[in-house]
Amino acid sequence: MRGNTIGQLFRLTSFGESHGPAIGGVVDGCPAGLELDLEAVQRELDRRRPGSTPLGTTRNEADRVELLSGVHEGITLGTPIGFLIPNADAKGGDYDKLKDMYRPGHADKTWEDKFGLRDHRGGGRSSARTTASVVVAGAIARQFLSAAGIEVSAYVSAVGAVKADPAKLDLATVWDNPVRCADPGAAAAMTALIEEVRAQGDSVGGVVSCSIQGTPAGLGEPVFDKLEADLAKAMLGINAAKGFQVGSGFEASALRGSEHNKRSQGGILGGISTGEAIHFDVAFKPTATIAQAQETTDRTGATVTLQAKGRHDPCVVPRAVPIVEAMACIVLMDHLLRQRSART
Amino acid sequence: MRGNTIGQLFRLTSFGESHGPAIGGVVDGCPAGLELDLEAVQRELDRRRPGSTPLGTTRNEADRVELLSGVHEGITLGTPIGFLIPNADAKGGDYDKLKDMYRPGHADKTWEDKFGLRDHRGGGRSSARTTASVVVAGAIARQFLSAAGIEVSAYVSAVGAVKADPAKLDLATVWDNPVRCADPGAAAAMTALIEEVRAQGDSVGGVVSCSIQGTPAGLGEPVFDKLEADLAKAMLGINAAKGFQVGSGFEASALRGSEHNKRSQGGILGGISTGEAIHFDVAFKPTATIAQAQETTDRTGATVTLQAKGRHDPCVVPRAVPIVEAMACIVLMDHLLRQRSART
Amino acid sequence: MRGNTIGQLFRLTSFGESHGPAIGGVVDGCPAGLELDLEAVQRELDRRRPGSTPLGTTRNEADRVELLSGVHEGITLGTPIGFLIPNADAKGGDYDKLKDMYRPGHADKTWEDKFGLRDHRGGGRSSARTTASVVVAGAIARQFLSAAGIEVSAYVSAVGAVKADPAKLDLATVWDNPVRCADPGAAAAMTALIEEVRAQGDSVGGVVSCSIQGTPAGLGEPVFDKLEADLAKAMLGINAAKGFQVGSGFEASALRGSEHNKRSQGGILGGISTGEAIHFDVAFKPTATIAQAQETTDRTGATVTLQAKGRHDPCVVPRAVPIVEAMACIVLMDHLLRQRSART
Amino acid sequence: MRGNTIGQLFRLTSFGESHGPAIGGVVDGCPAGLELDLEAVQRELDRRRPGSTPLGTTRNEADRVELLSGVHEGITLGTPIGFLIPNADAKGGDYDKLKDMYRPGHADKTWEDKFGLRDHRGGGRSSARTTASVVVAGAIARQFLSAAGIEVSAYVSAVGAVKADPAKLDLATVWDNPVRCADPGAAAAMTALIEEVRAQGDSVGGVVSCSIQGTPAGLGEPVFDKLEADLAKAMLGINAAKGFQVGSGFEASALRGSEHNKRSQGGILGGISTGEAIHFDVAFKPTATIAQAQETTDRTGATVTLQAKGRHDPCVVPRAVPIVEAMACIVLMDHLLRQRSART
Repeated sequence: MRGNTIGQLFRLTSFGESHGPAIGGVVDGCPAGLELDLEAVQRELDRRRPGSTPLGTTRNEADRVELLSGVHEGITLGTPIGFLIPNADAKGGDYDKLKDMYRPGHADKTWEDKFGLRDHRGGGRSSARTTASVVVAGAIARQFLSAAGIEVSAYVSAVGAVKADPAKLDLATVWDNPVRCADPGAAAAMTALIEEVRAQGDSVGGVVSCSIQGTPAGLGEPVFDKLEADLAKAMLGINAAKGFQVGSGFEASALRGSEHNKRSQGGILGGISTGEAIHFDVAFKPTATIAQAQETTDRTGATVTLQAKGRHDPCVVPRAVPIVEAMACIVLMDHLLRQRSART
Repeated sequence: MRGNTIGQLFRLTSFGESHGPAIGGVVDGCPAGLELDLEAVQRELDRRRPGSTPLGTTRNEADRVELLSGVHEGITLGTPIGFLIPNADAKGGDYDKLKDMYRPGHADKTWEDKFGLRDHRGGGRSSARTTASVVVAGAIARQFLSAAGIEVSAYVSAVGAVKADPAKLDLATVWDNPVRCADPGAAAAMTALIEEVRAQGDSVGGVVSCSIQGTPAGLGEPVFDKLEADLAKAMLGINAAKGFQVGSGFEASALRGSEHNKRSQGGILGGISTGEAIHFDVAFKPTATIAQAQETTDRTGATVTLQAKGRHDPCVVPRAVPIVEAMACIVLMDHLLRQRSART
Repeated sequence: MRGNTIGQLFRLTSFGESHGPAIGGVVDGCPAGLELDLEAVQRELDRRRPGSTPLGTTRNEADRVELLSGVHEGITLGTPIGFLIPNADAKGGDYDKLKDMYRPGHADKTWEDKFGLRDHRGGGRSSARTTASVVVAGAIARQFLSAAGIEVSAYVSAVGAVKADPAKLDLATVWDNPVRCADPGAAAAMTALIEEVRAQGDSVGGVVSCSIQGTPAGLGEPVFDKLEADLAKAMLGINAAKGFQVGSGFEASALRGSEHNKRSQGGILGGISTGEAIHFDVAFKPTATIAQAQETTDRTGATVTLQAKGRHDPCVVPRAVPIVEAMACIVLMDHLLRQRSART
Repeated sequence: MRGNTIGQLFRLTSFGESHGPAIGGVVDGCPAGLELDLEAVQRELDRRRPGSTPLGTTRNEADRVELLSGVHEGITLGTPIGFLIPNADAKGGDYDKLKDMYRPGHADKTWEDKFGLRDHRGGGRSSARTTASVVVAGAIARQFLSAAGIEVSAYVSAVGAVKADPAKLDLATVWDNPVRCADPGAAAAMTALIEEVRAQGDSVGGVVSCSIQGTPAGLGEPVFDKLEADLAKAMLGINAAKGFQVGSGFEASALRGSEHNKRSQGGILGGISTGEAIHFDVAFKPTATIAQAQETTDRTGATVTLQAKGRHDPCVVPRAVPIVEAMACIVLMDHLLRQRSART
């Protein structure tokens, strides 16, 4: 009930604080007999790694995943896959001054309101570092999905006011630019914007879009566990996510039925996949930690000035791309397995 | 795993097809000792009822809820509250011609792709009629929340391109106009727009916004079951919903951190309520069934012309208002109970 | 979390008090496409019905199950099967004097300790009447299992000190005698014993055994959800059950490994079915309500004399037979569906 | 759904094979603010450790638990407690000859029937070694229970035909003898019996009993999640367990109601704790692996002779005592937290 588990038949239970000994998780429900390419799992993790893009934080974590169980001679056993990622570059001391101060836009105070105490070092468990466990689980799911012909591809579609042109998308180019945008033209402008806000000691938000090819028709449970509902929950579970839309999304709300019925529904109708490409978008707020001095409150309620040091991303969306993909893989794999019991 | 249950500690298990004998559900986890006002539950249901607004369908269902268990002498027992709502005005025969035809924008074909068969009468279980069970569960939760000082209020904030003015909202006026808009000026324009699309045999989408007052700080589970993640899932579980955003949402993705940190975060930070008002929006697509003739396919794959009769809402958002409120009540009550085990 | 749901993929959510308007439940997860014989479901219910055996209570309930959803033209839709059984012969008034008194061996006081209040009429939700919902769900599962070649047969193997002879069992005779014993010779002695204790205003305990033929090898999840663990939980969930054993059970604890390895393991090894017949036993205590005067306490803590009237079974095991079978069917069907996601 | 998780509000997700890199788990739902004595956790683990009793296996595992998260400065954070126990003394090679052979009384063949393959080294995940993760979770729960005044004490009550005398139990003596029996007189006879069967290359079964003091009235959910039902499931989830009974158990089935109503009900009535001491028994079969030569089958179906080497316990019950306690602690803590939402 503490919400550290996602999925029903394919499920990740995650653990770990940013500056504890390790983060990790347990993937339960991976069917037996899957040939698991561990290097491919590591490559996914490398794509999310701090330092993976010049636009990100300078925190340097090797982020080597260690599998502890569930795989024997390269084949999944059907047993839980326990794994961990050591926290190698944990500079807890950097955060001492934050012990009694609540950073604006962060979960410092809410965490204390909830639990009565918190691990203040690097955000503790509220740190985006915990998403590395999601990436590992997603990488395992992706190998299962690939065998089923399903391919999940995310990309940055907006940074601040700079948007990718839907007519110019080329998914093959996403990893050629540091901003992970599928529109090479927009990528340059996005990169320039991120560099600009970084120079200003500021940050900026953005949007990650995701396209899923090859999904068979029939996935998704039609009432509460609609495919888009489970995707929405997974995406809003990512740090800094503030919105989700499928198909035409908020734009659909402005359309007439006669128009909208002719458009793509985003690959899902009535909560169930149609067999067409699935498309959704996730909005991210600007990184809350900025280098500019900000007023905030401390534990006594007094107003204090926060001059953040730390090592932070000026824009989270480039590094959010593999996380969005991983979450999508987890949800799809779960529903692929759930569908196995839909008929006699 | 078939996804007909929502909630962890406070949970609704729903059942029922649009044209079967009854719809209903089981509310489990309502604490013992709550004085339950059954008439207030019925009033909530009346607000969603077909026929509750002149802008909606002419299908006329009395929608009387019958409680079968869980309440004794007006007090909840702590046992499951079973309830049903008979399907009184079920004209299954109206739908005979749809048996072998797939309506555009509907779940007819996906449902068959999933289960191999479907109850074609009125959409079967994919009908929005099933949301009446959500309203009953939400009405029970609302009484518990009210006792805790939490008030949930939704309203229509956009119909097509007509938007409510955030500066002119008056929540007390929502039920004074047929469109359930909190901005009386916009309400008139929205009403005119809905009448216009109805006259054209068309439909239009819209946005429902929701404001929650009085939530204590500390609700929400910080990783996968963030408060906004559970809200997103609940809202995307409503028929025709295509998007969800909390706080500044998609707009936040265009902002700088220095700006956004000064704005409302929508009452949730890091997945946990801050104690401030919670605000979110839900986008709805235009009703898929329209009176205009449309091309579609039948079971053989042939293209056929659909001239819908039936009785349909030209815009779903007025009747979605009580459903959004009910879903929000269910999620909040669940998290209120979950919070009871957060500390020693 | 209030524990009114059993099963993972095939699950029953139950509701209802003994003397409320109705009891019932929701069966979720029954695959689509099962041809459902409703009369066979009713026949199962008739086997459990008060009045089904001359050895039981004289309470007379028609116990007609009404299906509200999930089945269309005799075929399951894959949607939840809502059902109810009206409480026709509810004589709540009989129980008025029990309002402030705690019956010995009953859950009256514990229920109040838990919830702070109780529905005292006929035991409320602690009544064995709630097992009728289990029988309905089990009867649905049984039809699915039969199609898979699995047959579940329970029988009374002991009443008080009278035991069936394992060498003389004939499962075909179980329903030929009022005590539901598979050993016709022992059945007569058991019947005589029950009549004797009834005449004495007393009651007696017994054992129900269950034999399952045709289970494929491979069912059961090897750590916490072992097949025997889920069976044990289901059986201890039946009113008045006090013990469970599989294979040689408690007798095995007295054996040497060299002997026991040569015996039947009860059809389950390491939590997983072997493909051989599954065998387990369930111990039931004597009915707590007896006609003899008993000392007990009332709400004030004072000692009072209880002279029970009501209508009670002198021995629960004959009527427990269909309940044990139903629970076994629910567990097996759940694991049969779970097994579908064990391999790639 | 692969059944590696136990508990609802307080839950353990377990992972690990006997001869993989490590076993471990994630404890989720431990409330924040618990001062955790890590040495006490290690002491519990030491009590289960191979080599902890001269009557057990000679496999020598240091079994040092490493906490990876969830605890900061000695206090639980409310976040998941990830932990691992390295497999130090894993002699996988010892098991090479078992790769194609199915040991009698073991899960070798059922495991392959289920998953299509298995990790044959030391039983893989079917090894009793996985119960070490249960002991860690139980040790955490025990500290929470102790603070609430609840004490859980298990002991061996039978080895083969040698039984403890209920009139001579002294729980303070359990750890004074190698067999973990609470009746010092019987302990000597049990020890002699175990030495005897070991000398014969044989094994013997036994019974572990458990007594719980200080449970408040009101724990347990009255229908499917009765307190005894959850205890039964937990206990049958322990390797080699074949039976469970609460209170008078199977003996109760032979009693009259007039007698049984006057006896202890085992501390639970109608699924809910009464506030009195809880008492239950768990039957264990004799260790399946014995040193005597046994006939068995190999992968081709041929009959072969197995002459086991390995290192095995001649009787599992002494080392099962801490596991029974740990399981009981997990179940009780879960229900203690669940009870927090029983009333308004």
